[in-house]
Amino acid sequence: MSQGADDVKRILYVQTSGTEAPERSATVFFLAASAAAMDVEVGIYFTQFGPTLLQKGTPETLRVKKAGVPLVHFMEQARELGVRFYVCQPSLDLSDLKMGDLIDGVEMIGGAAFNSMALEADRVICF
Amino acid sequence: MSQGADDVKRILYVQTSGTEAPERSATVFFLAASAAAMDVEVGIYFTQFGPTLLQKGTPETLRVKKAGVPLVHFMEQARELGVRFYVCQPSLDLSDLKMGDLIDGVEMIGGAAFNSMALEADRVICF
Amino acid sequence: MSQGADDVKRILYVQTSGTEAPERSATVFFLAASAAAMDVEVGIYFTQFGPTLLQKGTPETLRVKKAGVPLVHFMEQARELGVRFYVCQPSLDLSDLKMGDLIDGVEMIGGAAFNSMALEADRVICF
Repeated sequence: MSQGADDVKRILYVQTSGTEAPERSATVFFLAASAAAMDVEVGIYFTQFGPTLLQKGTPETLRVKKAGVPLVHFMEQARELGVRFYVCQPSLDLSDLKMGDLIDGVEMIGGAAFNSMALEADRVICF
Repeated sequence: MSQGADDVKRILYVQTSGTEAPERSATVFFLAASAAAMDVEVGIYFTQFGPTLLQKGTPETLRVKKAGVPLVHFMEQARELGVRFYVCQPSLDLSDLKMGDLIDGVEMIGGAAFNSMALEADRVICF
Repeated sequence: MSQGADDVKRILYVQTSGTEAPERSATVFFLAASAAAMDVEVGIYFTQFGPTLLQKGTPETLRVKKAGVPLVHFMEQARELGVRFYVCQPSLDLSDLKMGDLIDGVEMIGGAAFNSMALEADRVICF
């Protein structure tokens, strides 16, 4: 990695809530998008109930508040700014999900990859 | 910022639970006060349901356990030691709160300010 | 501490959920074991409802999913790899627990010790 790249700040967000708590669904995308707009390299790791947010069809229908904008608005904003999405294998099992149930572009990682990413990031911020 | 100030350690706590989970309300103030007593520069960022703890009248009546001391005890201890309170605009909306509904001395910040603060802090600890 | 020891990476995990949310019980042990296997020095701090996971008899019976392996599987894997368990005094009170109710080898620490540990760790990752 070049010296220039080492100057880039990295934040790894962790999202543990999912469709069972819509009020907790948008914060991580909002903050991740905001960090990415500041040229921070940003990833979100979805674990526990988090992967349920990534199910095809869910972002279009889930709302933080009734009459609010759907989650897809926050999610797309984050993705357009380059935020990367990671899921954890065991938490897919928890919600009986398979990678094919999720929106495109999500990467599956294991525990070792998560810990490496956490150690390489400048900050790990968990929701 | 002077060289001396750079030696100061900073911890940014994040509080995502509010009046819906009284058992989760005091930890952040307890730990923040404890850090501030160690000359750490401490802030608490209230997001998701967190801002509901800051409503006027709430700290005096909310208790972690029935028959326990009210939350105001932990909150005042933190504030007297210099812990600063920040709220996030969108989460005020989530609970239909306005700044005028909150106790005095709370500062409103946006996503960019949160991420900057998180990167400047030595640790970000989320509840 | 020797120069060699300073090269060791440290992760402090925080577990705030307990027996009230079995689905959230295993992640911390899974990730902690994975980090310890990478020669990271790992501790888990149990606060809020977290200490209920450490009650004698609980790890053998609690399951993330019906028909899944019991929590003790993940917990033992972490301990065998050297992960240390810490509890916070006030959260023992929250669940009316005493140290004698917990499995062996758990260390009780206060707020100052937690904050010191958090500042010494390379990362603090909260669940």
